[in-house]
Amino acid sequence: MTFLNNLFGYRNARVSLVLLTLITSLVIPALSYATEASQGGGEHGSNIAVIFLWIAIILILAKVSALVERVGQPAVLGEILMGICLGNLPLLGIYFFAPMVSNEIMHFLAELGVVILLFYIGMESSVESMAKVGVQSFLVATVGVVVPFVLGTYVAGPILMPGQSANTYLFLGSILTATSVGITARVLKDIGKSQTSESKIIIGAAVIDDVMGLVILGVISAIVFKGSVSMAEMGIILAKAIVFLVGAVLIGMPLAPFLGKFFSKIHTGIGMKFALVISFGLVFAYLASLVGLAPIVGAFAGGLILKPVHFKAFENPTIVDEIEEVVHGDESRGAFVAKIRGITESHSEKHTEDFVDHLGHFFVPIFFVITGMQVKLEAFMDIKIVLMSLGIFVVAVIGKIVAGFVCGKGINKWVVGVGMIPRGEVGLIFANMGKSLGVMDDNIFSALVVVIMLTTLITPPVLAALLKDR
Amino acid sequence: MTFLNNLFGYRNARVSLVLLTLITSLVIPALSYATEASQGGGEHGSNIAVIFLWIAIILILAKVSALVERVGQPAVLGEILMGICLGNLPLLGIYFFAPMVSNEIMHFLAELGVVILLFYIGMESSVESMAKVGVQSFLVATVGVVVPFVLGTYVAGPILMPGQSANTYLFLGSILTATSVGITARVLKDIGKSQTSESKIIIGAAVIDDVMGLVILGVISAIVFKGSVSMAEMGIILAKAIVFLVGAVLIGMPLAPFLGKFFSKIHTGIGMKFALVISFGLVFAYLASLVGLAPIVGAFAGGLILKPVHFKAFENPTIVDEIEEVVHGDESRGAFVAKIRGITESHSEKHTEDFVDHLGHFFVPIFFVITGMQVKLEAFMDIKIVLMSLGIFVVAVIGKIVAGFVCGKGINKWVVGVGMIPRGEVGLIFANMGKSLGVMDDNIFSALVVVIMLTTLITPPVLAALLKDR
Repeated sequence: MTFLNNLFGYRNARVSLVLLTLITSLVIPALSYATEASQGGGEHGSNIAVIFLWIAIILILAKVSALVERVGQPAVLGEILMGICLGNLPLLGIYFFAPMVSNEIMHFLAELGVVILLFYIGMESSVESMAKVGVQSFLVATVGVVVPFVLGTYVAGPILMPGQSANTYLFLGSILTATSVGITARVLKDIGKSQTSESKIIIGAAVIDDVMGLVILGVISAIVFKGSVSMAEMGIILAKAIVFLVGAVLIGMPLAPFLGKFFSKIHTGIGMKFALVISFGLVFAYLASLVGLAPIVGAFAGGLILKPVHFKAFENPTIVDEIEEVVHGDESRGAFVAKIRGITESHSEKHTEDFVDHLGHFFVPIFFVITGMQVKLEAFMDIKIVLMSLGIFVVAVIGKIVAGFVCGKGINKWVVGVGMIPRGEVGLIFANMGKSLGVMDDNIFSALVVVIMLTTLITPPVLAALLKDR
Repeated sequence: MTFLNNLFGYRNARVSLVLLTLITSLVIPALSYATEASQGGGEHGSNIAVIFLWIAIILILAKVSALVERVGQPAVLGEILMGICLGNLPLLGIYFFAPMVSNEIMHFLAELGVVILLFYIGMESSVESMAKVGVQSFLVATVGVVVPFVLGTYVAGPILMPGQSANTYLFLGSILTATSVGITARVLKDIGKSQTSESKIIIGAAVIDDVMGLVILGVISAIVFKGSVSMAEMGIILAKAIVFLVGAVLIGMPLAPFLGKFFSKIHTGIGMKFALVISFGLVFAYLASLVGLAPIVGAFAGGLILKPVHFKAFENPTIVDEIEEVVHGDESRGAFVAKIRGITESHSEKHTEDFVDHLGHFFVPIFFVITGMQVKLEAFMDIKIVLMSLGIFVVAVIGKIVAGFVCGKGINKWVVGVGMIPRGEVGLIFANMGKSLGVMDDNIFSALVVVIMLTTLITPPVLAALLKDR
C-alpha cells in the first residue's frame, strides 16, 4: 500500500485504491468498445481516425507511466513498460492495440520521435564540446565494437550454440556491436544529466559506433552473399559516412547562419523560425540515410551544428516562469527591470530548443511505447531460449562495460559503460537479415530479441542509480 | 520589379533579383540530385527518411509562400499555390514530389493537420458563443444545402450535361452541398477574425452542413444501391450524429474539468497537460468518425468544450513577449509589477492554446500544401471541361451566397456567403463514389474536380478583401 500511496502521492490508501480502480474500470470497457467499433468503422477516413485514438491513448498512458518517477525511475522506463503492457494485451484477449506495432504510420511517427529527440540532444551540445571528448569517444566506440564482436563470434557463439556455422557466430558477434543511443540519451535527459562529460562521450561513441556498424554490415553482407569482401568496398562505405559527418561540420556550420539571415528576409515570424529549425534536423536525418547512416545520427549532427544565435533575426517570444518569483522580490525598480531583462534574454536563447521540445512531447513517447510493444512476453516462457539469452546478455554487457574503462580519469567509467549497453534497431536489422539468409534459426533469433529487450530494460534503472550516487 | 521589391522588402531591385536567382539555382539542382538519390536509397529506413525530406521542404516552402502576405493575401493562399507548383512539377519533368500525393503517411499527417487546426479554432470559441449564433448557423446551413442541391440537380445538370441519367444529376447536386470549412477557418485565423460573429456562424453552419451531408450521402448511396431509402435508415444516420454532438456537450463538458483534476493527481508537469489537451482533441476526432462524421467536426466540438481553466492545476510557464515593451516604460515600481503580473496571468490562460498552436505549425501546412498538390493543371487545358466547370462553379457559388443572405441584420452577409463557398474532401468523396458507381463519366468527374479547386482558390482572396473593407 505504501508503494501505491507513493505513486499517487496520497496519505490515504483508500483514495489511491479508488483512483486505481477508476482507471481500470474506465479503461477496460472503453477499450473493448473501441475494439468492436473500430472493426465496424465509420464512413469518412476511419482508418486514420483509429490512429488518432491510438496516439491519444499512447500520449496519456505515457504520462500516466511517469508515475515510475515517484519510485525514483526515469520516465522512459515507464513508457517502455507501458508499451510492454499494451503489446502483450493479446495475452488477455484484447486485440485493439495489436495492429499498432505493424502499422506503417505508427512506425513513421515513432521514427520521427527518436529523430526529434536526438536533434534536441544535439542542439543542447555543440561541435566544440563534442571535439573535446572526441578521442575518448573514439576509444570507447572501438573497444565497444571489438570486444563484443570477438566475444560473440569466438566465445559465446561456439559455447552457447554448438554445431552452428561460422557465419552464424559472425552474425551473433555483429549483432552485439551497435549501440542504440536513443534510450541512454533519453535517460540522461530525464535526469537532467545530458550535459555531463560522460553523456557527451557516450553519444559521441554511439555516433562513431554507428559508422563502424555500417562498415560491419557491409562486410558481413558481402561475405554472406559473395563469400568475400574487397578493401575498396569497405573503403567506400566508410568514406561516405565520414564525408557526411565532416561535410556536416565544414559545410553545415557556415551554412546555418547564412540560412537564418536569408530566410529572415522573407519572414521574421515564429513560424518561419520554427520551420527552419525543424527542417534543418529533418534534412540532416535524410542526408544521413542517403550515405547509409541511421537518420538519428544525422539529426544529432544537425542539432550539433545549429546554434540559436543563427536565428536571432527572428521574433523571440520568451518563456518566463521565473518572472512570478521576481515579482515577489523587493528590489528597487532598476534592479527589478534588470532581472526581468536577464530572464527574457536567457529565454530567447533557449527558445529554438523549446519548439523542438514541444514537438518532442508529441512524438517521443510514441517511439518508446512502440519499442516496448515489441517486447513479447512469450519469448520469456521458453527456458532454453532464456538461458541462451542470459549467456549472450552477459557477453553483451561485459563488452560495453569494458569499453567504459577506456576513458581517462575524472570520468565515471561505469556510467559510460552502462550507457553504451542498449542495443536496438541496428541489432534487430542484423538479426532479421541473419534470419532471412538462413544463418540463424528461430531459437537463436528469439534469444537475440530477448537480449536486445534485456539491454533496453536494464539500462534505465541502472544508469539512474549510478547517476544518483555521484 | 516593384512587385519583387515588395516581396523581399528591398529598395534595390538588384538584391531582390539576386535572392530570387539564388533560391532557384539552389533548389533545382538540389531537387534533381535528391530525385536520383532517393531512387538509389540508403541502408536504414530510407523510405521514412524521404518523408523527412518532404516534410522539411513543405515546411520551408509553406513559409516562403507567406510572401503572398506582402501583397495582401492570406498565408493559406500561398500554401495552396505552393502546393499547386509542387504538384505540377511533373509537367517540367521533376518527379520527386509526385509520390507525395498518394503517400499514406503524408495523407495522415495532412489529416492530422486539419484536425489540429479545427481543434485550435474550437478552443478559441465556446459552446455558449456558438449557441448564440445557433439559429443563424442552422438557417445558413439549410439554405446552403438545399439551394445548391436543387440548382445542381434540376438546373445545372440538365442544362450543362444533357442526356445523362437522373442519378448523375442527383450526384451533381449532392456534391455541391457540403462546405469544407478548413480553408475558411484558416483564412479567418490568418486575418485575426476568427472571433467575429460571421466566423462563428460560418463554422457552426459548416458543422450542421456536415451532418446534413452525411444524411444525403446515406440517402444517395441507398438510392443507387437499392433504388430506395427508408425513413428509418435516414433517421438512424441523423440520430447518431446528433447523439454525438449533444453527447459531446452534455457528457464532455462536465467530464473535462474532472479529467483535468484527476490527471493532475498523477503528474502536474507540462507534458501531462499537453498530452491531455491534445488527446482530448484526438479522441473527439475519433468519436466523430465512429458516428460517420468527419474527424474535423469532432475535433472542433472537442475544442469547443475544452476550457483552459480545467487545466489550472498544471504548471503554467508563460509566454511573454510584451514584457520587453513594458521594460522600456517609466512607471513606478508598483505599476510596473502590476503590468508584469497582468501579462503573466493573461498568458497562462492562453497557454493551453499555445501548445496546440506549436503542433499546428508542424502539421497544418502539410494539409494545405497537399490540398494544392491535388490541383492538376492539365484539367484546365480542355476547353469543354473548363466551360462545364464554370457553369457548375457559378451554381456552386450562388447557392452559398444566397445562404449568406439568410442571416439577420448586423451581419456581413457577403462574408458568410463567401465563407461557405469552399468545397473539399466531402465533395471529392461523393465525386469518387459517383465515378466508381458509373453514374459519372471522366469528363464530368474532371469538371467537378475543377469546380472544387476553383472554390478553394477563390475563397481566400475574396474573403480577405471583404474583411478588409469593414
